[in-house]
Amino acid sequence: MKADLDRWMQESQIDVIFVVGAAQHNPAMVYFTGRVHVSQAEFIKVVGKEPILYYASAMEREEAAKSGLLTQSVDIYQPRRLLEEAKGDAILARALRYQRMLQDSGIQKGRIAIYGMSEVGLAYSVFSKLCQLMPEIEIVSEAEHSVLGQVRLTKDKHEIQQIQRMGEITTEVVGLTADFLSAQKVRNGVLIKQNDEPLRIGEVKRQINLWLAERGAENPHGTVFAMGRDAAIPHSAGDDQMILEVGKTIVFDIFPCQEQGGYYYDFTRTWCLGYAPDDVQKLYEDVRTVYQTVVKALQVNGQCSSYQKLACDLFEGLGHPTIQSNPSTEEGYVHSLGHGVGLQIHERPWFGANATEQDILSVGSVFTIEPGLYYPNQNMGVRLEDTYTVKDDGSIQPLVEFPFDLVLPLKHS
Amino acid sequence: MKADLDRWMQESQIDVIFVVGAAQHNPAMVYFTGRVHVSQAEFIKVVGKEPILYYASAMEREEAAKSGLLTQSVDIYQPRRLLEEAKGDAILARALRYQRMLQDSGIQKGRIAIYGMSEVGLAYSVFSKLCQLMPEIEIVSEAEHSVLGQVRLTKDKHEIQQIQRMGEITTEVVGLTADFLSAQKVRNGVLIKQNDEPLRIGEVKRQINLWLAERGAENPHGTVFAMGRDAAIPHSAGDDQMILEVGKTIVFDIFPCQEQGGYYYDFTRTWCLGYAPDDVQKLYEDVRTVYQTVVKALQVNGQCSSYQKLACDLFEGLGHPTIQSNPSTEEGYVHSLGHGVGLQIHERPWFGANATEQDILSVGSVFTIEPGLYYPNQNMGVRLEDTYTVKDDGSIQPLVEFPFDLVLPLKHS
Repeated sequence: MKADLDRWMQESQIDVIFVVGAAQHNPAMVYFTGRVHVSQAEFIKVVGKEPILYYASAMEREEAAKSGLLTQSVDIYQPRRLLEEAKGDAILARALRYQRMLQDSGIQKGRIAIYGMSEVGLAYSVFSKLCQLMPEIEIVSEAEHSVLGQVRLTKDKHEIQQIQRMGEITTEVVGLTADFLSAQKVRNGVLIKQNDEPLRIGEVKRQINLWLAERGAENPHGTVFAMGRDAAIPHSAGDDQMILEVGKTIVFDIFPCQEQGGYYYDFTRTWCLGYAPDDVQKLYEDVRTVYQTVVKALQVNGQCSSYQKLACDLFEGLGHPTIQSNPSTEEGYVHSLGHGVGLQIHERPWFGANATEQDILSVGSVFTIEPGLYYPNQNMGVRLEDTYTVKDDGSIQPLVEFPFDLVLPLKHS
Repeated sequence: MKADLDRWMQESQIDVIFVVGAAQHNPAMVYFTGRVHVSQAEFIKVVGKEPILYYASAMEREEAAKSGLLTQSVDIYQPRRLLEEAKGDAILARALRYQRMLQDSGIQKGRIAIYGMSEVGLAYSVFSKLCQLMPEIEIVSEAEHSVLGQVRLTKDKHEIQQIQRMGEITTEVVGLTADFLSAQKVRNGVLIKQNDEPLRIGEVKRQINLWLAERGAENPHGTVFAMGRDAAIPHSAGDDQMILEVGKTIVFDIFPCQEQGGYYYDFTRTWCLGYAPDDVQKLYEDVRTVYQTVVKALQVNGQCSSYQKLACDLFEGLGHPTIQSNPSTEEGYVHSLGHGVGLQIHERPWFGANATEQDILSVGSVFTIEPGLYYPNQNMGVRLEDTYTVKDDGSIQPLVEFPFDLVLPLKHS
């Protein structure tokens, strides 16, 4: 959690955290600033000191202040004079500004971890130049297991509230979608709209986006609404042109975030329109059984990878192929059991092949549990997913509850 | 334009263009791939050769293929084996993969320009490591005036069609907003909703987002809908809690993009609800006059900075302070005349202080013209903006036309 930042910086011998980019759609920056209309910024946190947010446009002064951080306009470094000093070399001018910002924070040397969703070519050039200007600094190579990744691995109460609120919005929209589908007319096994035309997946997705927008949510990665054979391909988003048919299986995976790129929620249900064929019902029960068994086994401080192993063992016990026994299988259980959720839709902790010993369930962890079974040659796929958290008392609970019905009744069939 | 890429690479002695990140909300990648659901990719273009798109997830194979590019899964480089070879160092493993990708493209040495909206810390570390593995390559420092920036400076027919379509959506939504405001009841000088509550700016913005979503547009940077004193602060987005009042001036600046981060459109009108006070009317006429005069002066191959100078001269002639005579003025004409529009809402060509000799109006340029006047102490601001293009015959036209009325009539006042 954020409160542990100084401790993690000390343990990792990181002297400075330096974040670049906008304060929207930029997880590392939004983590510190919140979602504010600051389009170009630098955030500098020196170990043991209060951080500073530098904003580039004087017009964004009030928005920067909304972050609650100490703020400072970059104008105090007179960017235009720096550009002259750099003989028009914009990269050198920016590196000179970074040098002065660091020096004003008392940094002449040390280990600097850089972060931010931004243009990589520009950042590479500027930080390379900065290293030439300040030979005693070192840009630390940080990948997954970075200080910031470590801090973001568990969420504080304020973060969990925001994720939970996104969960309420998400499940409300899922409920509206169920009601909307249930209310359609049916003719020759096809859902029919008021205007007598068949209903298509693209229209359902458009409606989902409207309901999300009404509730102040964004849907930057789109929605999985995959029917029939597409439901059997885990990451197929579904075919917008496809007509909704009775008895077909739909995997509905929805993962919106707060407006301007904030916290996400991740949720999946599998539905059959009107009735469920026997083989789908059987597949569904297997997934539901594994889901329930895994959730019961979850424990604070448990290794995430152990639950992936448990899910594989359980699916194999039910006679399904898994990636544990055959890493290249495209049938059966083919993906990882879950992942962390926060300012990114997929973040640590990891449950699958890339999980390490540090990927455990801790107080403040927020993560999905999403077992699934896929049989592309039988046009069948089932996945169930909720987002869970580990509470202060060590108990593990879904952030929002939602019914698990497979069959979506059609009122006019 | 894209067709000139090889020529610009040769002229700039760039051997490789290397783009990283997703194929959504990533201008440099989307420029080549279009908006496809590929969450992690590398795009490699060697001068004189056909480019290749590498995708990380086997599940995204079909989406990668939608780009129309040559595609290749990164699995052929056996990432897991590379991670073992790198003794678990994920950054070295990725650098090893990049090395092999380049070698397979025939590159052992040369100048490489890197691009992409992605996590800068990871990119810095990986490309630094790549330079150690391949001492004969050089990562070229490219800022604004990069090869890709140069190529993207003018748009081809397919790009202009997409921007124009966004312009049609944008102006349709502006029209709906005008109709919506006109239709409200008025009581004691305040716009009143059906439920007898006053209408607030936040509700108007929410409605704008819904209309955009219905038309398949995103609004990642939000909308400026700034009233009264806020209208006099060029980048104030407006206060969501503010009640809409008769006789107040609204600056309505709207800049949505295609879903998943595609082409933008940029558009501004200034409205007065019900009637315009005399001083606002006068301000409006001055802005309109400068707008019309500048637009008439636009010529193919014209220097963008010359039109900024023209706008300043015209405003000064009308008695307004400008940043030309006083760079720190917050009254009068305080910003640049326009900017390019494309996969970024603000891109070259520049018209203001950062404009260079290369910032000219060429066939295929797409840019805004947006003069404005601001008097914060008199709670007045006016801006007018349309997006223009230079056609094949050298003529310069707005991509979409929209009326310029200042007063928005209120039907029930």
